[in-house]
Amino acid sequence: MIKSPSCVALVAPAERTLAVCRAAMRFCALRGWVPLLELPLPNGRRTDIMALLPDGGFAAIEVKSCARDFLSDSKWSDYKEFSDMLFFAVDLDFPQDLLPAECGLLVAEGREAVMLRDASRHPLAPARRKALLQRYAKVAAGRLAALSDPEAHAEMRAALRVE
Amino acid sequence: MIKSPSCVALVAPAERTLAVCRAAMRFCALRGWVPLLELPLPNGRRTDIMALLPDGGFAAIEVKSCARDFLSDSKWSDYKEFSDMLFFAVDLDFPQDLLPAECGLLVAEGREAVMLRDASRHPLAPARRKALLQRYAKVAAGRLAALSDPEAHAEMRAALRVE
Repeated sequence: MIKSPSCVALVAPAERTLAVCRAAMRFCALRGWVPLLELPLPNGRRTDIMALLPDGGFAAIEVKSCARDFLSDSKWSDYKEFSDMLFFAVDLDFPQDLLPAECGLLVAEGREAVMLRDASRHPLAPARRKALLQRYAKVAAGRLAALSDPEAHAEMRAALRVE
Repeated sequence: MIKSPSCVALVAPAERTLAVCRAAMRFCALRGWVPLLELPLPNGRRTDIMALLPDGGFAAIEVKSCARDFLSDSKWSDYKEFSDMLFFAVDLDFPQDLLPAECGLLVAEGREAVMLRDASRHPLAPARRKALLQRYAKVAAGRLAALSDPEAHAEMRAALRVE
């Protein structure tokens, strides 16, 4: 197997993504940010994690397993349109200089993640924030409802359009 | 075992409650109402089901297993303060005349529930609706986040105050 210089992982990208994602979720939870995985946005994109902040703001967190993963996703600015702050979450092997300075940076090591750089704020317009909160609420509660009834799981997911 | 005349069930109350609850959840999902179980309210009560409607409204649904269950809960009007509509969900054995006429009525039979009476609307004030949507969103996404990571489940539930 040929290793890319920017993906020198001994860990497979999918496992790395999962580990960073879990550390970022836990980071959120421990500071009272409520994280939701894979929120579909009106522009057709989906954030890896959308966290609802205690003040009602939204932080989008994009998880990147390696440089190639970041470079192949040129449309990361699409996430800015639907959040108040945008963070990248990576692990210690990631070349941090690649990441845009205006975005926040979370770095994961094992189950822990720390914030190495806060994100600049670009507050949502009130109408978009309200619509985003409804979307976030519906997706979260819809997934949970489907999980609550194994017999009706598929039917409820389809009815509630839970991605 | 002495049976109350109003609880002549061959089915135990807890099972009956679960069955009615599931039918009501499914009823909600099939019409695009997104149901959330056991939402704690600011007044210390918790609704059995709080459904977020497509228009952004909230329907509280109280599940009653038998007359005694209804009569022992004299404070059902507390749920009206935090919803746009209040429904009761019962099964076919429930004496429906007990229920207040201004509240909606869902009747479950097996996995199905039908609406026998719509609820009158008592719209929430905008500030309360906004706060309720945030509460609903945080509880739903918080429970889901805790489920997403079995190793951090208890820690995340506690941090996100999911109860």
